[in-house]
Amino acid sequence: MKVSGRNQIGGRVAKVERDGLMAKVTIDVDRCTMTSVITGDAVDDLNIKEGDQVSALVKSTSVMLMK
Amino acid sequence: MKVSGRNQIGGRVAKVERDGLMAKVTIDVDRCTMTSVITGDAVDDLNIKEGDQVSALVKSTSVMLMK
Amino acid sequence: MKVSGRNQIGGRVAKVERDGLMAKVTIDVDRCTMTSVITGDAVDDLNIKEGDQVSALVKSTSVMLMK
Amino acid sequence: MKVSGRNQIGGRVAKVERDGLMAKVTIDVDRCTMTSVITGDAVDDLNIKEGDQVSALVKSTSVMLMK
Amino acid sequence: MKVSGRNQIGGRVAKVERDGLMAKVTIDVDRCTMTSVITGDAVDDLNIKEGDQVSALVKSTSVMLMK
Amino acid sequence: MKVSGRNQIGGRVAKVERDGLMAKVTIDVDRCTMTSVITGDAVDDLNIKEGDQVSALVKSTSVMLMK
Repeated sequence: MKVSGRNQIGGRVAKVERDGLMAKVTIDVDRCTMTSVITGDAVDDLNIKEGDQVSALVKSTSVMLMK
Repeated sequence: MKVSGRNQIGGRVAKVERDGLMAKVTIDVDRCTMTSVITGDAVDDLNIKEGDQVSALVKSTSVMLMK
Repeated sequence: MKVSGRNQIGGRVAKVERDGLMAKVTIDVDRCTMTSVITGDAVDDLNIKEGDQVSALVKSTSVMLMK
Repeated sequence: MKVSGRNQIGGRVAKVERDGLMAKVTIDVDRCTMTSVITGDAVDDLNIKEGDQVSALVKSTSVMLMK
Repeated sequence: MKVSGRNQIGGRVAKVERDGLMAKVTIDVDRCTMTSVITGDAVDDLNIKEGDQVSALVKSTSVMLMK
Repeated sequence: MKVSGRNQIGGRVAKVERDGLMAKVTIDVDRCTMTSVITGDAVDDLNIKEGDQVSALVKSTSVMLMK
């Protein structure tokens, strides 16, 4: 299965923080860190845990640029 | 000035493609590539050109995970 | 591979409209129609054509409600 | 009043889960379920309750495709 | 009908620019200007023209802050 | 530093509500109020407090219109 989102960035889960409905997942990607806020349900469904290899998926229309 | 968006990923503009109202900017980030779709106005306003150092800015609530 | 996005709605591609950088894909889903605007690159990468079975993927934080 | 968002999907509220600032609303739509994460204020403002008929509103630029 | 999106900002359409699939609508709001990129279909469906009173609708999870 | 997001709306922080991972910030902007939901980390990082002058940053592709 392929996804249309153009940004699929591989990394390793560094931290999973749960809080009621939501969860914040921090991912180590090369020299930087990415942060994803998803539902707790999604963390359970994908069984996301520290150390897991995951991909951060971002639609290109959600990416702003700073210069 | 600081921005609340938690994902600020530095990279070098590899390509700028303009098409009417919109523009697609491809950024080389370490071992991967990011794609941003923004307005042509924004490309003009920030004077974004191939070779520029930029940061891709993504809100954490816009980041999904795949596993 | 699983995706954290909670909304994954299956349907059949009814129409693909390309226009420069962007593409609009219309999907027949049961009694309603969904519209997705993605990059032309994504349409090529996934080889999306009329008649294809696809899933519309939407993050729960991108869904508003009207009542 | 009309809204520009192209995806307006009618359904019945199956569940409302509140948790501090945020709320998760699950909607039964034909054969599938949609999930919306909105603020608790919005749930109060629209008085969203189980059994209500609502429409899920999604901008076409927020819809990815999987194939 | 009410919408869950917490940001509903009234203003007057200053300019509508069409380009293939997409359209950019500029709105005068008090002392500032807002920009919306929507589909051309939406502009036709809502018959959006210069001078129209409209509201810009933004989900609170789509609003970043700069300081 | 400039940001590509076309909507940068200045205002004064009226209220900051923290709740676990997330925070809701209400901003007084001329005659209206804007609401932003960001991570608590971002509130700490930018040291956002009542009375602060901030800008609400919204990508044009995240702005719907109502008429």
